[in-house]
Amino acid sequence: RLLDLTDRAEVSFCVDTAEGIRGASDFFAEREHEAPVLLEIDTGHRRTGVPFESDDEAVELARLVNDSPGLRLAGILTHAGHGYHGPQSEDESETEALQRVAREERDRMLAVANRLREAGVNGATPGELEISVGSTPTMAAFGNRTENGFRVTEIRPGNYVFYDAMQVALGAASLDDCALTVFTTVVSRRRSGSGAERLYLDAGKKVLTTDTGYGTDGYGVLLYNAQHMRRHPHARITQLSEEHGWVKVPGGAAFGVGDRVRLVPNHACVVAGMADELHLVDGQNVTGTLNVDARGASR
Amino acid sequence: RLLDLTDRAEVSFCVDTAEGIRGASDFFAEREHEAPVLLEIDTGHRRTGVPFESDDEAVELARLVNDSPGLRLAGILTHAGHGYHGPQSEDESETEALQRVAREERDRMLAVANRLREAGVNGATPGELEISVGSTPTMAAFGNRTENGFRVTEIRPGNYVFYDAMQVALGAASLDDCALTVFTTVVSRRRSGSGAERLYLDAGKKVLTTDTGYGTDGYGVLLYNAQHMRRHPHARITQLSEEHGWVKVPGGAAFGVGDRVRLVPNHACVVAGMADELHLVDGQNVTGTLNVDARGASR
Repeated sequence: RLLDLTDRAEVSFCVDTAEGIRGASDFFAEREHEAPVLLEIDTGHRRTGVPFESDDEAVELARLVNDSPGLRLAGILTHAGHGYHGPQSEDESETEALQRVAREERDRMLAVANRLREAGVNGATPGELEISVGSTPTMAAFGNRTENGFRVTEIRPGNYVFYDAMQVALGAASLDDCALTVFTTVVSRRRSGSGAERLYLDAGKKVLTTDTGYGTDGYGVLLYNAQHMRRHPHARITQLSEEHGWVKVPGGAAFGVGDRVRLVPNHACVVAGMADELHLVDGQNVTGTLNVDARGASR
Repeated sequence: RLLDLTDRAEVSFCVDTAEGIRGASDFFAEREHEAPVLLEIDTGHRRTGVPFESDDEAVELARLVNDSPGLRLAGILTHAGHGYHGPQSEDESETEALQRVAREERDRMLAVANRLREAGVNGATPGELEISVGSTPTMAAFGNRTENGFRVTEIRPGNYVFYDAMQVALGAASLDDCALTVFTTVVSRRRSGSGAERLYLDAGKKVLTTDTGYGTDGYGVLLYNAQHMRRHPHARITQLSEEHGWVKVPGGAAFGVGDRVRLVPNHACVVAGMADELHLVDGQNVTGTLNVDARGASR
């Protein structure tokens, strides 16, 4: 699939292990093609990528890329997923946590770039080496700087397109910034012995997904006024079945069966992947439709 | 949409509130159509449905259905979602818990049916009243019986088509029974200081969803041998990013970058909704493809 794409566009991809480099080299060398490769660096997220503090490993793998037929080092890339971890201590605010991680992400990448240059790795010079960082939370706190001629050349915030309740909880966005809402109907309602009321939405796991965490409260933010993006003061989406969202309203609800409501989901990336189409709205009017082309296309 | 369908098939739907009944009645009466309606009963799940123990409410709503133009009572329906709650005490095994809930589901529905008949509700006679129960866990322990001529007339297990790691954890199925597996590739690998190894799969939240609970361990069961459905003895899927599954293997992994693995997801219902196509396999051979027609079609 990559090979097909390279005829139509400049496509680079990531590697972070010797095994991966050898596999890619065998593939492209056999097809007499030279592919530009980004070395993935782990700047603290502890997922994939060469750990930024492993001095020799980045240099070794970068050299292995250049020494491998069919491959050429194009740059280094990271995803500061630890921007999602929030404050490290009680003394740190959400904003300070994001600033710290954004700084770490940038500075650790510049340090790796400098290390590659000092080791004389081919392609590791300012202007030639792509330095790609990215994550929506750190994007909110990003500031570039130059170190020995190296600068970050690319930022890749993804969730930034929509924002969501998770980014609001992280301090990376306000509820007003959120562009993706789920439009749903109240289908049932029950009053419990304690006086609390439960309403049931026709949006459950198969629309909202069960994604939570990073300071989110429940399974999305129910809006009282979608026009002004005001949250419902009491209602909380406490539970999800496959097809239903369970909304708890202490004291009793001001809305009932048949009412349409909108909510801001916890995690827009996974919600966008659940629908075939997104509807564009301006106030009360639907102004267009976007197809979700990649939806369901995992192979 | 319901109205369109009724021209082609006998379609009934559920109600469980007076508001819902009035809304449906207004709709169908205006179109001069009589729709068969199932009254949803809550047999203990505490989601939607008329609580089985509210004597008067079921009778009142059943009467309201029959008195509403455009509607006619066709039956009663329940979903024993509390089959997912597992044992109630340490003295109860998983199997005993399922048997208890299955019994409750059946007996509470028969009791409601008898109450409707005693109250003289139209359509509430044996042979006339549909009694529909359903949930995959209780299906595993279901046994019908007759009470004053009433019997359960329909069971609706859904997950039963595939089974999954959640049903295995609940004791409703064995790993051998699971028909849906996710086929994925190891894309990276890291050894941590403590000697544990982490492998990263190219299947994350957008394939597996973050659904857990009901006794599941991690985000799916990684198979060592898919032909014989044997689980990998040490590997555990401990975390998910959007595109990656994080597999922890204490001591070190016997598989690495580029290897293909299969896993049984926690919750087949939501996983089936993530892909456009499912591939049918017999041993090593792909024998066909099923389109997931309803996928992404939430509106």
